[in-house]
Amino acid sequence: MNGKVSSAAKPAIVLLSGGLDSMVVAGLAREQDYAVHALTIDYQQRHRVELAAASRIAAHLGVAEHITLPLDLSQFGGSALTADIDVPKDGVEEGAIPITYVPARNTIFLSLCLGLAEARGARDIFIGVNALDYSGYPDCRPDFIHSFEATANLATKAGVEGRGFTIHTPLIDMTKADIAAQAARLKLDSAMSWSCYDPASDGRACGRCDSCRLRKKGFAEAGLTDGTDYAA
Amino acid sequence: MNGKVSSAAKPAIVLLSGGLDSMVVAGLAREQDYAVHALTIDYQQRHRVELAAASRIAAHLGVAEHITLPLDLSQFGGSALTADIDVPKDGVEEGAIPITYVPARNTIFLSLCLGLAEARGARDIFIGVNALDYSGYPDCRPDFIHSFEATANLATKAGVEGRGFTIHTPLIDMTKADIAAQAARLKLDSAMSWSCYDPASDGRACGRCDSCRLRKKGFAEAGLTDGTDYAA
Repeated sequence: MNGKVSSAAKPAIVLLSGGLDSMVVAGLAREQDYAVHALTIDYQQRHRVELAAASRIAAHLGVAEHITLPLDLSQFGGSALTADIDVPKDGVEEGAIPITYVPARNTIFLSLCLGLAEARGARDIFIGVNALDYSGYPDCRPDFIHSFEATANLATKAGVEGRGFTIHTPLIDMTKADIAAQAARLKLDSAMSWSCYDPASDGRACGRCDSCRLRKKGFAEAGLTDGTDYAA
Repeated sequence: MNGKVSSAAKPAIVLLSGGLDSMVVAGLAREQDYAVHALTIDYQQRHRVELAAASRIAAHLGVAEHITLPLDLSQFGGSALTADIDVPKDGVEEGAIPITYVPARNTIFLSLCLGLAEARGARDIFIGVNALDYSGYPDCRPDFIHSFEATANLATKAGVEGRGFTIHTPLIDMTKADIAAQAARLKLDSAMSWSCYDPASDGRACGRCDSCRLRKKGFAEAGLTDGTDYAA
């Protein structure tokens, strides 16, 4: 996994937040011998500490390129991750879209991946969405991904010219336990990644937000040790 | 047109580049009594002078909000507008997608409009694409717009909850002459807007890039005077 990227490798764009899911996706893309162009968005998220995690992961995997792109979504607000709204700590609510949903986030981020892909001559885009053990965000569902892919192929010069794009979602049917197991199989240290939405003042993961709860549950179910240092 | 926005007005997002087309679209949205939330993207475009035009137009129309959002697409490159590539000056080539195409630009910009719309409780998004007298960009065609709208309604909390989004393209079937005539009808001074991709060193519009050529042709066909100061 740490080897050099061959110059003949096909380029792929990987949306790399720095979380467990995107770390595993980047590892899977490298395992498939893609030259990984990792894109991380600095959207003034409450948990900007994940940007450092993205850099650690990119360096560990020996990616071909890692862009951290500033995009100040706090000017829009409308989410506990980008505005002054408390992050819920009382457990994952079934069936509801939580206040940590960021309006149109994955549409915006996939669009940026699409622009980078076309500019780099890549036809493959990887994103770590999963439809099980997730937070109920609409832009993590397969229907959305399929629709975005169709739009991408109408939107672009490459798409119109018949060299279409594929949005890869290797985690879509995995549980968090499956994803934790994949990280272990790929020898990716879980401590490199960051999931917590609302880090404690001492820098540790809060352990109580939806993202921490889902992560803890996944590692527990997989019978694996999570390298995260939790405050609770 | 300069009147105050009524507090009961429905909010709409208008993608405002500062060009003639987006100026007319913003004027049409105001004429329809929308409270206009104008979004301008500072993407390190070669013709960043258009940002000042967007601010002039927003002030003239008395918009409810004007956000100029920095997004450095020069990190991606791949276009004469965002990389060190010459802007063609020899005329509009029929049937080809020109080098001034910015990879996935309208997908990225509409996604940002979508995020702002959802955050502001708006369901209407206006964009000044037109499929006649345009530069041959794939992301200006009706097929793309329809597909994006469908994706938007799968991507978002509002869409999933049945309060879907409409992408308005009032210029889609207009020629540049029609658009110039609309600007005159709406009493929008054409000199407020900026179209040139590659301003001359003295700050005037070059008069020879595709965007200048299409604009000049439109005003000439409409029998109207263009307030632009052209170098050639």
